Amino acid sequence: MSQIYDRVALIGLGLIASSLYWAFKRDGLVGEVTGYARSGETRDIAREIGLCDRICDSAAEAVEGADLVVLCVPVGAMDAVAREIAPALKAGATVTDVGSVKRAVIDAVHPHLPDTVHFVPSHPLAGTEHSGPRSGFAELFEGRWFLIVPVEGTDVAVVDQLDTLWQAIGSKTARMDADHHDLVLAVTSHAPHLIAYTMVGVADDLSRVTDSEVINYSAAGFRDFTRIAASDPTMWRDVFLNNKDATLEILGRFTEELFALQRAIRTEDGDMLHDYFTRTRGIRRGIVEAGQDTDAPDFGRTKT
Amino acid sequence: MSQIYDRVALIGLGLIASSLYWAFKRDGLVGEVTGYARSGETRDIAREIGLCDRICDSAAEAVEGADLVVLCVPVGAMDAVAREIAPALKAGATVTDVGSVKRAVIDAVHPHLPDTVHFVPSHPLAGTEHSGPRSGFAELFEGRWFLIVPVEGTDVAVVDQLDTLWQAIGSKTARMDADHHDLVLAVTSHAPHLIAYTMVGVADDLSRVTDSEVINYSAAGFRDFTRIAASDPTMWRDVFLNNKDATLEILGRFTEELFALQRAIRTEDGDMLHDYFTRTRGIRRGIVEAGQDTDAPDFGRTKT
Ligand SMILES: NC(=O)c1ccc[n+]([C@@H]2O[C@H](COP(=O)([O-])OP(=O)(O)OC[C@H]3O[C@@H](n4cnc5c(N)ncnc54)[C@H](OP(=O)(O)O)[C@@H]3O)[C@@H](O)[C@H]2O)c1
Ligand SMILES: NC(=O)c1ccc[n+]([C@@H]2O[C@H](COP(=O)([O-])OP(=O)(O)OC[C@H]3O[C@@H](n4cnc5c(N)ncnc54)[C@H](OP(=O)(O)O)[C@@H]3O)[C@@H](O)[C@H]2O)c1
Repeated sequence: MSQIYDRVALIGLGLIASSLYWAFKRDGLVGEVTGYARSGETRDIAREIGLCDRICDSAAEAVEGADLVVLCVPVGAMDAVAREIAPALKAGATVTDVGSVKRAVIDAVHPHLPDTVHFVPSHPLAGTEHSGPRSGFAELFEGRWFLIVPVEGTDVAVVDQLDTLWQAIGSKTARMDADHHDLVLAVTSHAPHLIAYTMVGVADDLSRVTDSEVINYSAAGFRDFTRIAASDPTMWRDVFLNNKDATLEILGRFTEELFALQRAIRTEDGDMLHDYFTRTRGIRRGIVEAGQDTDAPDFGRTKT
Repeated sequence: MSQIYDRVALIGLGLIASSLYWAFKRDGLVGEVTGYARSGETRDIAREIGLCDRICDSAAEAVEGADLVVLCVPVGAMDAVAREIAPALKAGATVTDVGSVKRAVIDAVHPHLPDTVHFVPSHPLAGTEHSGPRSGFAELFEGRWFLIVPVEGTDVAVVDQLDTLWQAIGSKTARMDADHHDLVLAVTSHAPHLIAYTMVGVADDLSRVTDSEVINYSAAGFRDFTRIAASDPTMWRDVFLNNKDATLEILGRFTEELFALQRAIRTEDGDMLHDYFTRTRGIRRGIVEAGQDTDAPDFGRTKT
């Protein structure tokens, strides 16, 4: 495939940035890639493992001459990074980000950018519970959605070019409005994460059940929660603070529904429980059929 | 290995019973195995796929002459099954069950059994979201815990013999009091399942987010909930109705904790959120170190 962008800069060098780099290079999708991370330690690791063609010691230096700049930092750091790189951006460059929240990132980044550059926010629905420069792999995006959330008035050709890149790394792409994005993600990701963190916290706190019992006897449901609740604390703090309204709305609905089920248990309404549990199976079927998850028992974790 | 039991009867022929059968036979751990399930359909499938050496048309017939009887039916069906088999049990036989709840099963089963048989309740912490006679596999129990919950006054040698069988199919075994079992499982399994069912129900209900959006964009957390919430509705209805107090207690603590986190989001208390999310990571580390789960990103679902 011919190169989709000539020069690319990755700001932040964690799971998402490193996965992007390996995917770009595997298929020769872009030219030189520069990189920058906040800490000297991460920049050293990047140099050691060959992550990026050139690691720079400032974000401004990394974006100089870049045709595409990808902001891969936690959502709460987007504002500061945008301020810092703005003066160094090349006219005509495209700036994108991979933040898990879109309205707040647009508000934080867009005002700082010069009129001569294009801002095209995006969000890959792909990740693992691991983080940092060593956690990336080229296949992360394969078969996963990469949502693009264009701001009003953006040149269609500019958006299409970015779309082409995300498709070239194996993603399916879709375009969406920022507020709708934040609501959908509150349901499919943000509320589930908060709930998993909460349940793991409750288990950790319950003094009548020891930690070793929780750990040993976690096979039946709970260990899936612990995987979700092992995700990066900074990233998730920023997600909740920056998608506050939608997350709180979904949690409010969740609590209401949980109370209804608790009541059914208390009043021994077996039919209500059975009907509810039957209905939720349909959604799983849809996810497996849409190729968004494996049908192997226990995610294929258990050998069959 | 020499045979641990001569004649074994499996009552109920779903995921657990079929996995037990394949594990028993792979290693020649027991002699003839008879089986019974409620529906003619399941019995026919069992005959077709060679599940059990002999399929009987009543539970009473299946347990005749058996040295070990394993009750593998939903918790709510234990009472009726115990009544039915009681007159047909051989003197000196051991009766066990694999129900996910222990106090209620003991109360439902023990009173019906003649004094000449030994009742040794147990519970494998192993399962998948699939069910039915075709879903079993011999490796299900490998490396998983099989909890044994002896009733007072049971002959130690009888308990040890069952312990030997569960270890022979690859399980680690531990003994526990019934009430403590039910509390531990409320934390590690029952409450997480109810929470997962609830979150999937909320997503399904939210009219501003379409089902296809929920399905397509489920990669980031939610799809793990849908797997848990795809488990058998009858089994789970019975679990909640039969472990009501412990489940409601844990859900009460969960709600309290969730409210504290919601409040931290509302008041933008980033430090509280960050501390909380850092603490829950430790539990995950423990589970991976204890060999209770894989450290592969996304349970190894994503290729690295
Ligand atoms: N992980 C997921 O599952 C996932 C999925 C989709 C989207 N996202 C989004 O992708 C973004 C990155 O996530 P990730 O998982 O790749 O994170 P990560 O592995 O934790 O890496 C974050 C990177 O950002 C750098 N960084 C943090 N603050 C910075 C600042 N003020 N200036 C410059 N660099 C800074 C870090 O540098 P140091 O190493 O020096 O601290 C690190 O290299 C986040 O916005 C997240 O919401 C994540
Ligand atoms: N699945 C898990 O993850 C898991 C883990 C640990 C323990 N357990 C416990 O193991 C037990 C069995 O679970 P499972 O997953 O193997 O269930 P399953 O796959 O749904 O199979 C249940 C079996 O019980 C039979 N059955 C139901 N009601 C009956 C009755 N009144 N009389 C006789 N047979 C009856 C069913 O017969 P038909 O097919 O004819 O309806 C079916 O063969 C439950 O007590 C459960 O709590 C399950």
